[in-house]
Amino acid sequence: MSLYKSPYEGLETPALLLSRPAFERNLSRMRSKVESAGLALRPHVKTVKCAQAWLRALGSAPRVTVSTLLEAEDAFANGVVDILYAVGIAPSKLARAAALVERGADLTLAVDTVEAARAVAAAGGAAGVTLPAVVEIDSDGHRAGVASGSELALAVARALKAPGARFRGVMTHAGGSYACGSPDEIAGMAERERAAVVNAAAALAEAGLPSEIISMGSTPTVTFARSFAGVTEARVGVYMTMDLVMADLGVCSTDDIALSVATSVIGRQPLRGEILIDAGWMAMSRDPGSGRHGLGRVCDAFGAPIGDLVVSSANQEHGIVTSPGGGAIAFDDFPVGRALRVLPNHACATGAQFDRYHVLDEAGRIEAIWPRINGW
Amino acid sequence: MSLYKSPYEGLETPALLLSRPAFERNLSRMRSKVESAGLALRPHVKTVKCAQAWLRALGSAPRVTVSTLLEAEDAFANGVVDILYAVGIAPSKLARAAALVERGADLTLAVDTVEAARAVAAAGGAAGVTLPAVVEIDSDGHRAGVASGSELALAVARALKAPGARFRGVMTHAGGSYACGSPDEIAGMAERERAAVVNAAAALAEAGLPSEIISMGSTPTVTFARSFAGVTEARVGVYMTMDLVMADLGVCSTDDIALSVATSVIGRQPLRGEILIDAGWMAMSRDPGSGRHGLGRVCDAFGAPIGDLVVSSANQEHGIVTSPGGGAIAFDDFPVGRALRVLPNHACATGAQFDRYHVLDEAGRIEAIWPRINGW
Repeated sequence: MSLYKSPYEGLETPALLLSRPAFERNLSRMRSKVESAGLALRPHVKTVKCAQAWLRALGSAPRVTVSTLLEAEDAFANGVVDILYAVGIAPSKLARAAALVERGADLTLAVDTVEAARAVAAAGGAAGVTLPAVVEIDSDGHRAGVASGSELALAVARALKAPGARFRGVMTHAGGSYACGSPDEIAGMAERERAAVVNAAAALAEAGLPSEIISMGSTPTVTFARSFAGVTEARVGVYMTMDLVMADLGVCSTDDIALSVATSVIGRQPLRGEILIDAGWMAMSRDPGSGRHGLGRVCDAFGAPIGDLVVSSANQEHGIVTSPGGGAIAFDDFPVGRALRVLPNHACATGAQFDRYHVLDEAGRIEAIWPRINGW
Repeated sequence: MSLYKSPYEGLETPALLLSRPAFERNLSRMRSKVESAGLALRPHVKTVKCAQAWLRALGSAPRVTVSTLLEAEDAFANGVVDILYAVGIAPSKLARAAALVERGADLTLAVDTVEAARAVAAAGGAAGVTLPAVVEIDSDGHRAGVASGSELALAVARALKAPGARFRGVMTHAGGSYACGSPDEIAGMAERERAAVVNAAAALAEAGLPSEIISMGSTPTVTFARSFAGVTEARVGVYMTMDLVMADLGVCSTDDIALSVATSVIGRQPLRGEILIDAGWMAMSRDPGSGRHGLGRVCDAFGAPIGDLVVSSANQEHGIVTSPGGGAIAFDDFPVGRALRVLPNHACATGAQFDRYHVLDEAGRIEAIWPRINGW
């Protein structure tokens, strides 16, 4: 059987690939942007979920953002003490959070209700530790958080001034930036994010609650922000690998996407204009991204996109590749067994389908295997 | 904090729940339907990916269907010898498949190209084993397979008559049944599936290639099929847990859905009519299902749906619950920490986000933890 040349010949597919050169470029670019603006970089580990990867992303003052307590425990085990858990905390998780603080982690929680703030204080008290928390501010009407400068923000912050808890500051996340249409619009969203969190901190400081942490961030807003005045740190995650959503937003080029799925041709339906591959939704996830690339963009084994080919639909272990533009596919170029790569819509979602990365060097050869931590 | 009563109080969320009573009912119903029709049941392990679960589903002649070689190895380790790998095989997987046959597994592969059939024979020859394979027949224009009775079907089957390989029969899968509008339409699809595979076997038998395996199946078609004449076995998987897609197709009732995600309220946005929970897309998957329930239907901790509440959108670890009908939500009934459950659109996709099941008894209490095997 004629197999097209592949730099990772014989790799069993599907497999998750991480191109180290692109990854390292992404890390440098973001570190420069954030640190040259005079604020601290607090990378979010939820995209890569892999210490070998995010340890390379740390800024000069090591600190991370996490989305699960498992990530927090893994960060602490890998030597990072300053950890922000940036999801509203559920009371059933507090004993585990307190245990990590007891062991020496400087773990900060996030709350946006008086109830949650009281639960934090109660759990800290019960465990005999002090649990610090930030108040989450809503800067874009997108998800969680209380309004900047509101009575509620003050009430939540005050509820943290109790034995067992400690008010530490404010954070916000403009997830709405993912829906922006241009870099200018994203810059506007970044300014909303900055203003919301800085004004929130000012109002709380006036009421006698000064903020040690004033935190904003998403990869798009931090990339295009024109000012970080008053902000102490930036939280960013997906910039490490980038993905098609980031490329569509203009945050990166397709060449910057460090993550892809290695796959093999397993069949063809020439009459229907379809190539079948062994990367179904189990490998790609069902994340629709911007809706412009099916479940991912099809590349050769070196990562170069092939025409307009995308994974237009998928079953669990079958991906169906078509040309959305209706271009003729040279089926002879896609023998069974040919190695291909697929660029993901959303790196966080595609990564989560795998338990390890095959790390590629400059020539696209496998140079290492890095494990991921999934679950909670 | 007032927590609503939950039968699994204190469980850290999100967690994957499997209600054993509903699960056992689903198994009995399908086993009766298939075995009373005089054919063999070959359950597909890809939905549950858990030997403790699928061992309970075996028919009187133990055999399983798998979608990955990891599932095949796990089945063999759990005492099942007769295994059908029902995805077109990629050549890079053949050495591993041959090793399993070498160890004593009766592993049957699936092919739908002459190239793949030749690769199977070559790999069997190289490993000094005989690799049996079925020819996949396309019964619905949906995905893989060759046309029933075609020259190509004959050519693929003949390519398996070579040292290192063995022609074993035919299989088909009417994935198109998921798009049917009524049980009658599904019954029609089942008849197409039956006719395609039986006619394919007849044509091959006439050419001197008799089929030992004549296999059809999907949960919808096997549920509503009026005849299995000429078929030797039925392949079904999602019936074990059911899900909202199956309920929407009329295959089951909501009460039959044995799988759900345990979650906790983590916040509220009363002005926007939103409850925030800690089951985001990382817990639910992004599978859109029929498009009628967001990412899943919200129930109380005992599994009873609450009005028309659904997870209407999600981020990685945040689910946003709304009433699509615009009904007022009694926010006082959703304190931070309240235990809820979410029914999944697609059990295969939601299950894949977790590494274990919390198995619930009749009263909804946790009686066991069963591990899943994810990955490849």
